[in-house]
Amino acid sequence: MPVPGPGYSITVRVEAPPSTTAAGDLTSAIGRAGGVITAFDVVESHADRIVVDITCNALSADHAGEVTEVLEALPGVRVRKVSDRTFLVHLGGKIEVNSRVALANRDDLSRAYTPGVARVCTAIAENPDDARRLTVKRNAVAVVTDGSAVLGLGNIGPEASMPVMEGKAALFKKFAGVNAWPVCLDTQDTEEIIRAVELIAPVYGGINLEDIAAPRCFEIEARLREKLNIPVFHDDQHGTAIVVLGALRNALRVVEKDITDCRVVVCGVGAAGSAIIRLLQNKKPADIIAVDINGIVHTGRGDTDENLQNIAATTNAEGRTGTLSDAVRDADVFIGVSAPNLLSADDVASMNSDAIVFALANPDPEIDPLEAQQHASIVATGRSDYPNQINNVLAFPGVFRGLLDAHAHEITDDMMLAASNAIADVVDPERLNASFIVPSVFDNAVAPAVADAVKKAALATKPAEPTSRGGSSLPWSMAEDLDF
Amino acid sequence: MPVPGPGYSITVRVEAPPSTTAAGDLTSAIGRAGGVITAFDVVESHADRIVVDITCNALSADHAGEVTEVLEALPGVRVRKVSDRTFLVHLGGKIEVNSRVALANRDDLSRAYTPGVARVCTAIAENPDDARRLTVKRNAVAVVTDGSAVLGLGNIGPEASMPVMEGKAALFKKFAGVNAWPVCLDTQDTEEIIRAVELIAPVYGGINLEDIAAPRCFEIEARLREKLNIPVFHDDQHGTAIVVLGALRNALRVVEKDITDCRVVVCGVGAAGSAIIRLLQNKKPADIIAVDINGIVHTGRGDTDENLQNIAATTNAEGRTGTLSDAVRDADVFIGVSAPNLLSADDVASMNSDAIVFALANPDPEIDPLEAQQHASIVATGRSDYPNQINNVLAFPGVFRGLLDAHAHEITDDMMLAASNAIADVVDPERLNASFIVPSVFDNAVAPAVADAVKKAALATKPAEPTSRGGSSLPWSMAEDLDF
Repeated sequence: MPVPGPGYSITVRVEAPPSTTAAGDLTSAIGRAGGVITAFDVVESHADRIVVDITCNALSADHAGEVTEVLEALPGVRVRKVSDRTFLVHLGGKIEVNSRVALANRDDLSRAYTPGVARVCTAIAENPDDARRLTVKRNAVAVVTDGSAVLGLGNIGPEASMPVMEGKAALFKKFAGVNAWPVCLDTQDTEEIIRAVELIAPVYGGINLEDIAAPRCFEIEARLREKLNIPVFHDDQHGTAIVVLGALRNALRVVEKDITDCRVVVCGVGAAGSAIIRLLQNKKPADIIAVDINGIVHTGRGDTDENLQNIAATTNAEGRTGTLSDAVRDADVFIGVSAPNLLSADDVASMNSDAIVFALANPDPEIDPLEAQQHASIVATGRSDYPNQINNVLAFPGVFRGLLDAHAHEITDDMMLAASNAIADVVDPERLNASFIVPSVFDNAVAPAVADAVKKAALATKPAEPTSRGGSSLPWSMAEDLDF
Repeated sequence: MPVPGPGYSITVRVEAPPSTTAAGDLTSAIGRAGGVITAFDVVESHADRIVVDITCNALSADHAGEVTEVLEALPGVRVRKVSDRTFLVHLGGKIEVNSRVALANRDDLSRAYTPGVARVCTAIAENPDDARRLTVKRNAVAVVTDGSAVLGLGNIGPEASMPVMEGKAALFKKFAGVNAWPVCLDTQDTEEIIRAVELIAPVYGGINLEDIAAPRCFEIEARLREKLNIPVFHDDQHGTAIVVLGALRNALRVVEKDITDCRVVVCGVGAAGSAIIRLLQNKKPADIIAVDINGIVHTGRGDTDENLQNIAATTNAEGRTGTLSDAVRDADVFIGVSAPNLLSADDVASMNSDAIVFALANPDPEIDPLEAQQHASIVATGRSDYPNQINNVLAFPGVFRGLLDAHAHEITDDMMLAASNAIADVVDPERLNASFIVPSVFDNAVAPAVADAVKKAALATKPAEPTSRGGSSLPWSMAEDLDF
């Protein structure tokens, strides 16, 4: 199943003899070793040698090493240098901070810094809400992690989590113009994490919690939501839930079912699974059955974990017990956010007709999508090499764009449902089909549509702000507010 | 003494009658009101009216209001809108976060995000020092405040401090390419501040403490220096000291004195004064006398404050007592980092010949520079409207550039002295004179010179790093390191 991919892309600079067969020898050698060449550039040409940069995709880091050795073994060939493109892209970090204001001369400094800046400080001191107009708080989100649950790598700590958090920040800016900054905390103590986020909150208009292990993530998010007057959003929970529900909305349109007639199985009751269940309950499906490593979640199971108790109490109306196979029998929808190879083709065959299967475990889904397609009408995964990729990038940029533009103080289920619907509705009815239930992450329509929907939903729930500026000391015409 | 300045610059959009005298009437009115016009633009012209944008500098916010009222009072004139340029510049904040990597297609995402990023995380997990190559830690500084001592505004808290911290970040990037991010903490408790900075430290290659009140700032810096393996630098202390010593070095060249023959008075024993004294002690002046609000600091005074005790024990060799006037008698150098109007012309006259007076209290110095010049050979202030501006912008960008490039773990007096000398040495001997003892903040030679000097000093003190990459899992040729 694995194919050479750009995640393992190397550029090898080799010296080779200046023969007419040199290029062919090099490329054939790479092909024999299983690499896929993506670029071949002669960078130097001399009487006695040529120097070539060959870029190729490999299967893995080890494989990249093998490919290089194969080249080195060719007669007359010397490998000068190997550059790993992924590592090169990361040198010095993937994000930067820039000034938005001119600083070319003393007049500029007088406005952007002393003495002019003092008046702006005074205005905010007199009316702290003006921080949301006059500072980066208008357009900044903290990406907060403790490095305890990063991608599929698990507990790798704050420094090692930085490339992911920087990547998240880069995506926030690219897709929605949101300034995001990594906050990688050197603690895994729940109380310390909560207090640290409270202490840094003044700079931000929203908090995005990321890659913090369950069950600590539930308490951290809940307590921060109580304490802060800016939205707090754990993307691994709610981003996933938003995109899943959007994809489900479209999948149900394709198979022409109503959610209220559907039995939904959610496999995996960590951060993502729990959030999916909770958001889905707003849609009132016929039933939800949650399944974890110990089988079907039900009230007779004696779980002590508070999250599991809540889920047991609010799902599985018929009190089904047993394994995952028992759960999916006659189900309409399977949503997996768990681990590889838990669902078999027979399991899918036992589902209701027009079954919908979202096998979202990363990197290897609960079932091979090709197997699932033998019996299900619609299959989605988290992978980019299959149709219907459920990717959180469809949600978090637009969600925060909308929250920031609404100067929201919180995020509610209504706002998340609005986001979810907006993602689904980006897909035109004419283009909607079993292999196209979610937009591409590169579809420029997504983030603005999500932002707009979230902003509307947020403003609808906000208490009306006073129309006069009250005690603000801002100069007369400061009704301006920036669109980003 | 106050003149209309760009810190109070407004743009007024007015409608006026289309008469031949309209422009003159408007500009005369502003002049009579004491405003200084910097721009006059006719933006619309109609048969019955013209619309003009008039930009002018005022003396203060109230004065800007008066100028506007004067315009409104002119016959046939209507003020449509007033924009305060300082506030406009601040809308939405003065800094932004941008991606340094391409994110245009799936291949880009595979390298900058999943799955490629996982390998980079793993590499750092195996060798945490690689965070300084592969993440923004290579080039990022936290600007940390609790908002307790901001400019001349005092204790205004974290939100209100943000415009200053954003300005600092903008200056870091403009002058030295350093990514700086504001950390405005919602606490003034020493222990909480220390712990918060410890917790956020993984992302950064250095910590710049800013606008934290004395005496808490001393303990906070000292304890963080013990705990962290990145440099911690309180700019209000050491930035000031670095620039003061650099200016002093050049001033002594002009008057042809040696520091070891000089008696120096430091007026003000807060953050800046204490740091100046300590850094200066490396240069072994003939004597230093410290003066605070209670007069000359000496061991017989019975101070309980630890900082004052240390200073009393290490300065004032002759045990002088009394007032500031008693201190400056026969002194060679006066350095004021205190409050306005503490030093008289007679005081300066009582100093040694070729006296050097640095009156750095902001915005109003210890003595009017014009008065000081009657008796001193060299006068410097913190103000931009007099020669010899002592401005911390000359130090902090280059200092951190050098520390980051050296992958330094700390900052020492040697590095600060190196920075100080570098600032002084930017001024060519041919250009050096009593009115030009420090470079302009806009002199592009300053930050690189400071960075180079600090980097050399940092590398000279570092234990040698192993030449092999030890347990690093980085691909073979990853000796690359970026220059910023």
